[in-house]
Amino acid sequence: MGMKKGYFITLEGGEGSGKTTLVQGLKKWLESQGFEVVSTREPGGTALGEKIREILLSSHKMRIGSLAELFLFLASRAQHLEEIVAPSIKRGAVVLCDRFNDSTVAYQGAARGLGVDQVRSLCSAACRENVPDCTLLLDIDPRVGLERSKATGKLEASPGAHDRIESEALNFHVTVREALLEEAKRDPMRIKVLDASLSKDKLLNDACHQLQKIFSGA
Amino acid sequence: MGMKKGYFITLEGGEGSGKTTLVQGLKKWLESQGFEVVSTREPGGTALGEKIREILLSSHKMRIGSLAELFLFLASRAQHLEEIVAPSIKRGAVVLCDRFNDSTVAYQGAARGLGVDQVRSLCSAACRENVPDCTLLLDIDPRVGLERSKATGKLEASPGAHDRIESEALNFHVTVREALLEEAKRDPMRIKVLDASLSKDKLLNDACHQLQKIFSGA
Repeated sequence: MGMKKGYFITLEGGEGSGKTTLVQGLKKWLESQGFEVVSTREPGGTALGEKIREILLSSHKMRIGSLAELFLFLASRAQHLEEIVAPSIKRGAVVLCDRFNDSTVAYQGAARGLGVDQVRSLCSAACRENVPDCTLLLDIDPRVGLERSKATGKLEASPGAHDRIESEALNFHVTVREALLEEAKRDPMRIKVLDASLSKDKLLNDACHQLQKIFSGA
Repeated sequence: MGMKKGYFITLEGGEGSGKTTLVQGLKKWLESQGFEVVSTREPGGTALGEKIREILLSSHKMRIGSLAELFLFLASRAQHLEEIVAPSIKRGAVVLCDRFNDSTVAYQGAARGLGVDQVRSLCSAACRENVPDCTLLLDIDPRVGLERSKATGKLEASPGAHDRIESEALNFHVTVREALLEEAKRDPMRIKVLDASLSKDKLLNDACHQLQKIFSGA
């Protein structure tokens, strides 16, 4: 109330959409603008999140149903928000979070079939008042994205259960992409779709442009 | 679908309400009636549940917010239902589950202040179609129950985070009792309130009577 308040920015996008590179570019740019930047992703350095991550990565050693998996993600998310994100925003930082609710809706809700409405509503419960000010959705054709990932030898560990997700077929990624775009249609004020097939520089430029609009209250 | 289907019975009640003793008595009685009985409680022998239990019991070593704690309970619940409860019911067994959703609503929703409506709705999401056929609520004044527990030297480990719960004051247990009774008022068809201050034999008798009504479809 009258206090300086930071911004909560989330980045979404499939494999090879360039989130990691964009976060680095945004961080540099934001710092040059005088912002403190907290760049994070789940489990984001919480002790609980790390424990949950261990469990998710050992899913070959024990049975973890899709619904149990979802609740584990949400436990990690709730803790990450409370311990890392909320305090950072409170002291005026810009938080850049690599993957958040929209990924969960797309991966668990759509691709794993738990239902997007259900998962969206559970995500809201896990987040309470911690709603992103802006979400940058790096949209790319999965065929292009997956090729890029292979080329750089850098397949992501997100959203939490790397080995489970990576082994899925292209169809899975197509479903994820469609679901993410659907979320953007539902919430165009928050989610800004960026064309991630463009060059790094062009993508960074578009992202900065979107954030400038948020900062200026436009 | 024309198949033999078992029953899902949950038991709720505060410290010293006599759930453990009642479960033993009911198991004996049900078996004498020819039922297969599966007596369980979370984590109920699932590998995931045991991992989650370890985390909850180490809460002095790491920060676990109330909401993250709730999602951990629900992850364990979803897995327990999928792996233990649902298959047992499917093959025609009577499942007796020591503590379930109503405890979560009372402890996390009411006593920890997460909100009963919110927690009830999250519990439903974790359970999907696995709704108890009957819940026996063993109601007792917490002053009496806690004295009993101390006398037998047997304080419960439920609902999952023993050491956190036990250290709370009497007020906490009073709130839990009130919340459980409130749930019974909301859902009188499912939740049957039993007077747990009665003798063990009388309590068992009342419980058998309630279950007989369920089995006969009354």
